Amino acid sequence: MPERSWWGWGTVGQRFDLSRVPEFLPFLRSRLGPRPGPAPQPGPALDPARLTPPALTGELISRLSSCLGSGAMSTDPLERVLHAGGKGYVDLVRSRRLEFPHLPDVVVFPRAAPEVSGILAWAERERVAVIPFGGGTSVVGGVAPRRSEHQRGAVSLDLSHLNGVETPETHSLTARAQAGCFGPHLESRLAEHGVTLGHFPQSFEFSTVGGWIATRSAGMMSTTYGKIEDMVAALSVVTPRGMVATRDLPATATGPGLLQTLIGSEGILGVITEATLRLRREPEESVQWGAVFPSFSQAAEAIRLCAQDDCAPAMIRASDEAETEMLRLLRGRPTGALKEWVGHSLVGRRPAFLALGAAGGARAVRHTIGSTNRLVLRCGGRLLPLERGENIVQRQMLLPYLRDALIAEGMLVETLETATTWSNLPRLYAAVRRSIADALRRSGVTPWVGTHCSHAYRDGASLYFTFLCWAPPGEEIRLWESAKTAACEAILAHGGTLSHHHGVGRDHARWLPGELGETGMTMIRALKRELDPAGVCNPGVVI
Amino acid sequence: MPERSWWGWGTVGQRFDLSRVPEFLPFLRSRLGPRPGPAPQPGPALDPARLTPPALTGELISRLSSCLGSGAMSTDPLERVLHAGGKGYVDLVRSRRLEFPHLPDVVVFPRAAPEVSGILAWAERERVAVIPFGGGTSVVGGVAPRRSEHQRGAVSLDLSHLNGVETPETHSLTARAQAGCFGPHLESRLAEHGVTLGHFPQSFEFSTVGGWIATRSAGMMSTTYGKIEDMVAALSVVTPRGMVATRDLPATATGPGLLQTLIGSEGILGVITEATLRLRREPEESVQWGAVFPSFSQAAEAIRLCAQDDCAPAMIRASDEAETEMLRLLRGRPTGALKEWVGHSLVGRRPAFLALGAAGGARAVRHTIGSTNRLVLRCGGRLLPLERGENIVQRQMLLPYLRDALIAEGMLVETLETATTWSNLPRLYAAVRRSIADALRRSGVTPWVGTHCSHAYRDGASLYFTFLCWAPPGEEIRLWESAKTAACEAILAHGGTLSHHHGVGRDHARWLPGELGETGMTMIRALKRELDPAGVCNPGVVI
Repeated sequence: MPERSWWGWGTVGQRFDLSRVPEFLPFLRSRLGPRPGPAPQPGPALDPARLTPPALTGELISRLSSCLGSGAMSTDPLERVLHAGGKGYVDLVRSRRLEFPHLPDVVVFPRAAPEVSGILAWAERERVAVIPFGGGTSVVGGVAPRRSEHQRGAVSLDLSHLNGVETPETHSLTARAQAGCFGPHLESRLAEHGVTLGHFPQSFEFSTVGGWIATRSAGMMSTTYGKIEDMVAALSVVTPRGMVATRDLPATATGPGLLQTLIGSEGILGVITEATLRLRREPEESVQWGAVFPSFSQAAEAIRLCAQDDCAPAMIRASDEAETEMLRLLRGRPTGALKEWVGHSLVGRRPAFLALGAAGGARAVRHTIGSTNRLVLRCGGRLLPLERGENIVQRQMLLPYLRDALIAEGMLVETLETATTWSNLPRLYAAVRRSIADALRRSGVTPWVGTHCSHAYRDGASLYFTFLCWAPPGEEIRLWESAKTAACEAILAHGGTLSHHHGVGRDHARWLPGELGETGMTMIRALKRELDPAGVCNPGVVI
Repeated sequence: MPERSWWGWGTVGQRFDLSRVPEFLPFLRSRLGPRPGPAPQPGPALDPARLTPPALTGELISRLSSCLGSGAMSTDPLERVLHAGGKGYVDLVRSRRLEFPHLPDVVVFPRAAPEVSGILAWAERERVAVIPFGGGTSVVGGVAPRRSEHQRGAVSLDLSHLNGVETPETHSLTARAQAGCFGPHLESRLAEHGVTLGHFPQSFEFSTVGGWIATRSAGMMSTTYGKIEDMVAALSVVTPRGMVATRDLPATATGPGLLQTLIGSEGILGVITEATLRLRREPEESVQWGAVFPSFSQAAEAIRLCAQDDCAPAMIRASDEAETEMLRLLRGRPTGALKEWVGHSLVGRRPAFLALGAAGGARAVRHTIGSTNRLVLRCGGRLLPLERGENIVQRQMLLPYLRDALIAEGMLVETLETATTWSNLPRLYAAVRRSIADALRRSGVTPWVGTHCSHAYRDGASLYFTFLCWAPPGEEIRLWESAKTAACEAILAHGGTLSHHHGVGRDHARWLPGELGETGMTMIRALKRELDPAGVCNPGVVI
């Protein structure tokens, strides 16, 4: 596996080349104004001598080491830095400044569930925090090794060596996979047997089965394939109070839904070690196309009608006018469908782009395309031709590298997401957008906010916001906090959820009582107290 | 509403007339042998003087009464008897014997959530058990007002006066309904706005929104419409520690899934008072048809292929050879499709019947019929023509009256259900069937066991067992226990779940640790301890 970047997204060497989209930065400058100061320092160099040394002593570490059979552990500076946090804006800013407030003392790589049990028992005895780490792509502060005050240290529990995939059950369309399995490895194992999970989050290449489940992840094809919580037939979780292993079941009525309580538990109740996943056969056909609409509200209306027609495309995403404008500049030199679009009569009127992707049996895909296109036209959209060469999903996976490039230019770039019912969607869209922009303006900068509506359900959809502004050195986190706070408060005040698919992490924890209520919070605390009475599991996350 | 029966299913007056199916009893006698003794007593008469008087004193009751605003309460003997239990075989046998081991002391009918809070607070203060009661159709001992040893009495909390349905949100396809709303009332309110919940359990006429949610109910059209847990966008539950009210959301990633923890909670964590339900538009087309197969395994294989083809009919149910034989006799004089079937070349070879029903947009229904029929033929099935006049769903709803008629003849009649993956289905089917038959044979009677496979998922399906034998007076409960024990043990030993859609109740509680494991049970106990520390809510159910 290529070397992972500790200061940005993905792998070292991979980057987004802004020179290939020459109109992009000028466009942003036209919106955000000129950069208020000099460009930030170029990419940082890691100096191991500047890192806080591990707090845990040799004897304590050697007792930890005895919990591991074939598993490994490391106090190597690069490993510690790679496990110091996730990939949220604040993580990246701090890493680029060589600030690592939450370095783990040690990183362990167990190879079996009993080793995980041993590590948790050791952590309870020694008063050490254990932070489960899948691919480390959390953008909500879910994997930073913060310990509580009464704890002596923090261990990052990296599951990447627990990465087996059993031969899929093609009769039942299920596969048993271990938590540390990365997206591409899982899909390549499944593809050998003609099946797929169909879970393609933007982080797909760098995130894991366990991470997806722990955070209630959603892939770009979720309208057909569902969120990860729909794809889990069984789960095994090692808690400090023992293993919980649910049975492989298509459905059950045996009391309060334990499976769904463990899904989304973000490491606070224990460590997910294995899951039985629900699969699909590899699609016979996979097509992507698009449409443009005179307005975002019409594009979103097309999504609603598609979702409620029971034959919505697997991927359906409407960008608002602002995001559409940016996407067009990112596409660079117009070719194929884009040429159509650029030449389109709507261009002068700030159109809204609808990305569409269908996958499945040939007949079903034809049915989906036909139904979708009828509804697109009914909502005032204009269809852009199918482009078989183009992969919107893969293109989307490159966008986090663009974020790195913009941070290097001196910008704040952050995303956040929510979900709500269709009836409430326009109100929530307007409120969150306005709150982010107002907060940044009050903080003295000019914001850009773009949004898309995606992950369609019959009763509602997700809204995904991207916001940008210049961030003068030293001001980055203050600006981020003002926008994040404003957004979370707007979400709570206007009927949304704090997250549709990123999770709670530490970033949303203080607002969670506003969404779940005090009694809801006591339910989570009761589970935490029962399964993790010493509070070793990912302290500070969720609650 | 017509008067409810306290000794049998449904309403007084409604009955299944065995004389309309003259071949049926002779067939059963040919399988079970002659009745071993005289026919049981005819329908019982209730003598209020024979009932245990309420244990709760006047002053205590008057304090309860002060919790109710516009709500009502009753100590009327008939009300107490109607709330003495559910509709499982044991409930019916005991009622017919005028044995009521768990009569509530009082029945309360709150009209608002704050009244429910008041009742729970009163129950905590006065050490009284509170048993939520929707329609009282539990077949797993979920609504019998049993109190713990340290409790002074038991209140049946009947939600039927909490039965409002707000005007549906046809834009978001949701509706807010109160827990005590019965199926027909809900659907008639929704139909005024052209929408439907699409949840049609066999108990539909006599069960409630809250009861469905509390027990993770499944309707006969679940393959398209989902189980009730898929239909709940939000839930309000009054617990002794306060109200939990989740937001109306299509999906969320805010930590452990509280919503799904409350669904299936069977009254042990509090009282469900309201839900936001996900709706569908009323189907343009609704068709039912069938097919016959040379064997049950081929019919079940057709279900698997349909479910995995993503266009399975909403209702798809394969009866095994034994159940098919009985269904044919129950159909009486052959007409229409049945004539085809009776004249069919497969008849001599004990065929297996597949019931099919599709509903939705006209195009989607055509697509479903086409795909399904192709797969039926591929699996060796023969199609029976569509019959628009016939309603398999409605016919199914009459079967509990047949059970009453057979109990009156002196038979034990019980059903139970489970679910598993497709790979494990043949093994589980054989094991449960054999274990029930063996247990009854060991108890000295000749059994009949019939099974169907229904509620199809891509990864598996439900199995539903019906078993019959003669039950000499006084032997009913012993026979029932031997069969039930054998079935539960076989389910646990062979990878099934103790229930796919009936719930845990008291009947399955002792086996639940075998399914969820000790750590799973401690999770449920932790929630119970937190929300209901005094243990007033439905004691003895689930845990």
